[in-house]
Amino acid sequence: MVNEQGTHHADLTSFASSLTKSETLSQLVETYLALSTDQPNWVCNLSNASSLLWHAYHSLNIPVNWAGFYVIDPKSPTDQLILGPFQGKVACQTIRFNRGVCGAAAETKLTQLVPNVEEFPGHIACDGETKSEIVVPILDKNGVLRGVLDIDCLALEGFDETDKEELELLAKSIGETCEW
Amino acid sequence: MVNEQGTHHADLTSFASSLTKSETLSQLVETYLALSTDQPNWVCNLSNASSLLWHAYHSLNIPVNWAGFYVIDPKSPTDQLILGPFQGKVACQTIRFNRGVCGAAAETKLTQLVPNVEEFPGHIACDGETKSEIVVPILDKNGVLRGVLDIDCLALEGFDETDKEELELLAKSIGETCEW
Repeated sequence: MVNEQGTHHADLTSFASSLTKSETLSQLVETYLALSTDQPNWVCNLSNASSLLWHAYHSLNIPVNWAGFYVIDPKSPTDQLILGPFQGKVACQTIRFNRGVCGAAAETKLTQLVPNVEEFPGHIACDGETKSEIVVPILDKNGVLRGVLDIDCLALEGFDETDKEELELLAKSIGETCEW
Repeated sequence: MVNEQGTHHADLTSFASSLTKSETLSQLVETYLALSTDQPNWVCNLSNASSLLWHAYHSLNIPVNWAGFYVIDPKSPTDQLILGPFQGKVACQTIRFNRGVCGAAAETKLTQLVPNVEEFPGHIACDGETKSEIVVPILDKNGVLRGVLDIDCLALEGFDETDKEELELLAKSIGETCEW
């Protein structure tokens, strides 16, 4: 849809190649917040957030091969995540809290920054090409875990403290703007 | 996750470049059915289906720039669609039944095969680069409209009767395998 400025929604995925990682990810968070104003539907918001993440990392030439979300599985809410919106190749459908990087983020409610997934105990490989990963828990306004933000990279050490900081801001924005 | 055959979920997005369009889309439908066996969660299934669509069309060198879903908006179920899982650039969040190609598919419950979007009355451009589009309604087991499958292409006449036939099979499979 064309907005007042004559631009299209798709244009929101344009990130200037001259920006630093911190600037790109800050723009991503601002764009997410603008999109989620007056729109609390979590499926809609996570779908657009996946697109923003994919295009932001590709504008930075970071070889992200998967960007998206797992949410609490309504069929097993105390111990299982289920696949949510994402961009990338087909992914595992459910993940137990005690399995892999996503499970660890869900169980501890702490960001998991993993420079080498092969060194992570119990790593679940949805894609054998993934080398590094970052997973950030998503808590709602009341501190209840609603899901995790998950990004995979084809390179070792794909993510650092800057990613952690900005993605935690995004996860907080998502947790607080969505109705779950 | 590695299955019994030692392959990863991501490998399901591999479509041989030697296949015809009909063969590729048939493989897509079969893969969707295998993935949705024992998994009725609609968000999970539409997320993986979007990935399959994106990778299938790219294996065919058809310049698809958006592949995904709009579903009935629970806040306005009689007259509005809301964005669901997709792959591609950021998209319009809600679409009224009386607006554009997606709205027409929802209102008529009939596939809309649009060789040139600029000639479609009331076309909504989420992305100004889209030239052609196909939208297929998704009905559940009881014939109730649950959403639409939407694919956009950067070329004119990106889709034909083969796409219509195979995507209607996929939409029927999705409608009947998911709990809505």
